[in-house]
Amino acid sequence: MDLKQIIRTFPDYPSKGIMFRDITTILKDPKALNHALDQMAEQLEGLDFDLIVAPESRGFIFGVPLASRLSKGFVPARKKGKLPGAVTKGEYTLEYGTDIIEIHTDAVEHGQKVVLVDDLLATGGTAKCICDIVTELGGAVVRTVFLIELDGLGGREALADIDTKAILTY
Amino acid sequence: MDLKQIIRTFPDYPSKGIMFRDITTILKDPKALNHALDQMAEQLEGLDFDLIVAPESRGFIFGVPLASRLSKGFVPARKKGKLPGAVTKGEYTLEYGTDIIEIHTDAVEHGQKVVLVDDLLATGGTAKCICDIVTELGGAVVRTVFLIELDGLGGREALADIDTKAILTY
Repeated sequence: MDLKQIIRTFPDYPSKGIMFRDITTILKDPKALNHALDQMAEQLEGLDFDLIVAPESRGFIFGVPLASRLSKGFVPARKKGKLPGAVTKGEYTLEYGTDIIEIHTDAVEHGQKVVLVDDLLATGGTAKCICDIVTELGGAVVRTVFLIELDGLGGREALADIDTKAILTY
Repeated sequence: MDLKQIIRTFPDYPSKGIMFRDITTILKDPKALNHALDQMAEQLEGLDFDLIVAPESRGFIFGVPLASRLSKGFVPARKKGKLPGAVTKGEYTLEYGTDIIEIHTDAVEHGQKVVLVDDLLATGGTAKCICDIVTELGGAVVRTVFLIELDGLGGREALADIDTKAILTY
């Protein structure tokens, strides 16, 4: 199954010059959804790890089913003010300004091995920020798995010291 | 397994008088996560339906793994401006003001049977709004499944004409 045939592209969304890869057509097709999850799970075969962490909100789409399948814990990385407990936060740069991402401070225990999952690797800003929070909490991100990698935006360089896997590249 | 023993409660969060039920401790525990998903999947046994729809972002946490397990399509209901294609939108009332939720107009086909999944049923405002959008698109919400129902906030009344299931009640 060629997932690229199912993904839709919206040129100039959300702003001019951006080719937006729309994965909702994968989600809507049960065979495509499970094929995408199979492929992502394959990237984690034989890997020793404890937790999957994924950023709100599209990261949840792939992170939770993978955690469920592989019997790992799931830790949400959320936008500012969404988690009720004590949080450890990080700031990352957007095209204009910065944004904050938060993880429950007690969600990652010292020495735990963490896999970061998201739908898309672009500049890697969010992913790097989450990896840094995990490190600050005493854990270690041992692998990242993305459904889509956008080439030439520096994502792989931002995650240079981490084993990074992507299923599809544009 | 008693999921209520695993859920944490934060009093007065996010505002005074609210007992916030924190499910992140379920997510972090692989056995609890899969137990919650098993229980939610059980509510759909034998039901004839095509799609699961769930609201951003905590609805994604349970909606996608259930869609994957049951080989159904998944349709995200998102906040304003997040979906790239043509959308059908609904407005619902919050404590102060209103909010908008959007579904891709081509995500639900005429005659499709839809199950709505979310982590929490409180006033039912978001859920009712999504049900109305699905109806407008020519589909029908045939059942709703929540992990937690907060009693006495009118959620079940808001969804009075829809078969509504919840795993835990507070």
